[in-house]
Amino acid sequence: MKGDTICALATAQGGAINVIRVSGERAVELVSGIFVPKGNVPLEQRKSHTVIFGDLCTDGSEILDEVLVTVMRAPHSYTGEDSVEISCHASAYITQQVMLSLLDMGARQADPGEFTMRAFLNGKMDLSRAEAVADLVASTSRASHRLAMNQLKGGFSHELGNLRNKLLKLTTLMELELDFGEEDVTFADRGELLQLCDEVETVMSRLAGSFSVGNAVKNGVPVAIVGETNAGKSTLLNALLHEDRAIVSDICGTTRDTIEGTMTLSGVAFRFIDTAGLRETHDVVERMGIERTLEQLKKSSIALWIIDPAAEAKQIEELARKLLPVCEGKKLAILVNKCDVIDPITLSKAMEWAKLMLGKYGNGIEWEQRDMWAISARQGTNMDKLEEFLVRSAAMPSIAAGDVVVTNVRHYEALVRALENIREVKHGLAGGLPGDLVSEHLRAAIGNLSEIVGEVTNDEILGNIFANFCIGK
Amino acid sequence: MKGDTICALATAQGGAINVIRVSGERAVELVSGIFVPKGNVPLEQRKSHTVIFGDLCTDGSEILDEVLVTVMRAPHSYTGEDSVEISCHASAYITQQVMLSLLDMGARQADPGEFTMRAFLNGKMDLSRAEAVADLVASTSRASHRLAMNQLKGGFSHELGNLRNKLLKLTTLMELELDFGEEDVTFADRGELLQLCDEVETVMSRLAGSFSVGNAVKNGVPVAIVGETNAGKSTLLNALLHEDRAIVSDICGTTRDTIEGTMTLSGVAFRFIDTAGLRETHDVVERMGIERTLEQLKKSSIALWIIDPAAEAKQIEELARKLLPVCEGKKLAILVNKCDVIDPITLSKAMEWAKLMLGKYGNGIEWEQRDMWAISARQGTNMDKLEEFLVRSAAMPSIAAGDVVVTNVRHYEALVRALENIREVKHGLAGGLPGDLVSEHLRAAIGNLSEIVGEVTNDEILGNIFANFCIGK
Repeated sequence: MKGDTICALATAQGGAINVIRVSGERAVELVSGIFVPKGNVPLEQRKSHTVIFGDLCTDGSEILDEVLVTVMRAPHSYTGEDSVEISCHASAYITQQVMLSLLDMGARQADPGEFTMRAFLNGKMDLSRAEAVADLVASTSRASHRLAMNQLKGGFSHELGNLRNKLLKLTTLMELELDFGEEDVTFADRGELLQLCDEVETVMSRLAGSFSVGNAVKNGVPVAIVGETNAGKSTLLNALLHEDRAIVSDICGTTRDTIEGTMTLSGVAFRFIDTAGLRETHDVVERMGIERTLEQLKKSSIALWIIDPAAEAKQIEELARKLLPVCEGKKLAILVNKCDVIDPITLSKAMEWAKLMLGKYGNGIEWEQRDMWAISARQGTNMDKLEEFLVRSAAMPSIAAGDVVVTNVRHYEALVRALENIREVKHGLAGGLPGDLVSEHLRAAIGNLSEIVGEVTNDEILGNIFANFCIGK
Repeated sequence: MKGDTICALATAQGGAINVIRVSGERAVELVSGIFVPKGNVPLEQRKSHTVIFGDLCTDGSEILDEVLVTVMRAPHSYTGEDSVEISCHASAYITQQVMLSLLDMGARQADPGEFTMRAFLNGKMDLSRAEAVADLVASTSRASHRLAMNQLKGGFSHELGNLRNKLLKLTTLMELELDFGEEDVTFADRGELLQLCDEVETVMSRLAGSFSVGNAVKNGVPVAIVGETNAGKSTLLNALLHEDRAIVSDICGTTRDTIEGTMTLSGVAFRFIDTAGLRETHDVVERMGIERTLEQLKKSSIALWIIDPAAEAKQIEELARKLLPVCEGKKLAILVNKCDVIDPITLSKAMEWAKLMLGKYGNGIEWEQRDMWAISARQGTNMDKLEEFLVRSAAMPSIAAGDVVVTNVRHYEALVRALENIREVKHGLAGGLPGDLVSEHLRAAIGNLSEIVGEVTNDEILGNIFANFCIGK
């Protein structure tokens, strides 16, 4: 794979110009085969980082386009390989002809993220920085951009490097002890080791703890919309997003997939998750939907419980019994729907019942009296209250330039594993376990951190990471 | 305006990278204000046509992006001015911040086509070549691309130059005669002058004549769909385009605007024009629609006459009387619609009647027996026959690399005016008109040609031309 020369359109189709990227050993040679530079000095003789104007002739002597060609030679290119960029007129026909010619001469269409993967494989950047490139391209706000840029610039890698050095120091001390174990000499003062462990644990905890904020900034604060079947969850989602994102129908159990939509309120992005209605069902597909609902709810930090006041009390209790225990530690709003068609007494009764249920099943939920009100999702009544609740409940800490925040679920999971290993180490040290047993967890923790920066990796992991990139990056 | 420094996003939003173009006296200075090059050699000291890697800092020291910056100095740039291209990660946020910073420092958002207009104003290309840039960007097929590239490479300008030289020679000869008029010396042999005129006329005629082909290649072969109200014209258009492009309803006279759609068959592009139904009406809006129908029909080279066999014979005749005379010289297909619901005898009768009408009103129409058949637009019956008819009727001459073909309506109109002036000149010469009167038309013809290449122009003309460009080109 590494010997291949790859090419891809790096810009979106449309606009005034298109840029086609070529990278690999034969990049200069291949482009040279279809490019007649003005002045006739061949591409091969041009210096790195120069731009040459000329004609692109993909089909014999017929001119396809007048283009600018940029040559960047290994290792001083993005990929670390010889790279050429062709900047041509943004015609679909021209782009297609250039790509066809390059493929014809032996180049290969680049996979998503393959340019960045090559940059990683050629040592131009570590894996966490490579991943930041995709985040940077996807960034749409100051906060999400800042997180991606901090990561791209290596702030996170640097912190990981520090952690790793401390762990290596620990290992060295431990392994010295092992080597001389039979002489019964304890080189490492276990108190000192424990202190080092504590320091590492503190930093790791902070980093892992930053994930919920980082993820919320990157992907939006997750908000689950739950409620009994046909209570109006999809209609509420539509009202929030001002569009027909979810399919709304009067047939019970319409929404089986979790449909997401995002919106920004006061600079905070929210990600809404519509869920399948919770009712007892024998339908296998719907049953799976309900399990997914609970799963989604667990991942959310805010829950909107929408109640149909016309529903039976028993039905509302059934839902509360399943749903509220999962909401522990979350912010909750109770929305009593259909206030446009239901009389005030029925609305009040539904509210009283919901509060009873909250008392019975909702231990540890962050809720206060003002977090319940009547709405009409269909007519958009009292949606301003809901927006105010969301902004108040999100209360995101602001992120400064240079702050290291974990935004990537892969990094988070590796950190959590490292943290578990460190806790095992502490446990072992405190309990007087033999050095070799303790040392095993220590090495595992180092391995976890190495995964993040890509010192330890495999094709499958790389494949998964770069598959999320766009083609041309 | 010329002193301004302009900037624009030159690529479409999306993809992996975005290119922001800056052009004007302050281009290098402005970009230098937000760019920290790796190695710290300031942008101002870099050579033309070099690419520099570095950090973009739009907001103090906080890094916005890692970018490649290309410097191209006057006059060796596209616009002929100092130009800088910033190639950044394709994040909407980043692009927005870069643009805001540039505007903040005093750059101006470029108008559509302004980079190319500056190239024209700075003498980098004549007007017909500048116009070819927009055609090139819009080209979607080999043929349309070839036409645009021929024009961009100056083939057309060259032919116009030759014509102009001949006209100038004519003028010189004529004006010599004028100067010495009183001495009654005829310097120019009128026979020689006439011959020169003939040559010029022949070339101009050929160029003007190439417009219908050029326009068809560029915009598609124009096909008019005509027929009585409610015969199923819109349904036919939908069936052809496989989409709901036109609004179809059962209320007579639904289609008042000419709705167009394009499709490609065997490499030929067709442009379909749905027309208002032709019936006697007192509705002013619909009356205007009918006039437009006849106008559209005149511009088409192929007409599809769709007949509702259930319509009265008188109604069909009424339409034929209005419509068929306009179809002289065009290819015609007669489509008897609704074969899915109408009995064969009624279908046959309608066909016989249509043929009678064709004989009565359709003088000079290109039609043969096989060009009439029954269809069901609603069910798509016999649409394959229609496609075969279209491909057969289009029979486009192939265009070779280097062929000069007029594709631009502005050029065509100027050529037609030049042609009229030349014919006046011939007329005058043959009729022995005084030289000064003849000479006037000659100068007008030269003026017409100069308009095309932009030697004679004004802001309004330029504004109209470049308004059709995309921003960033």
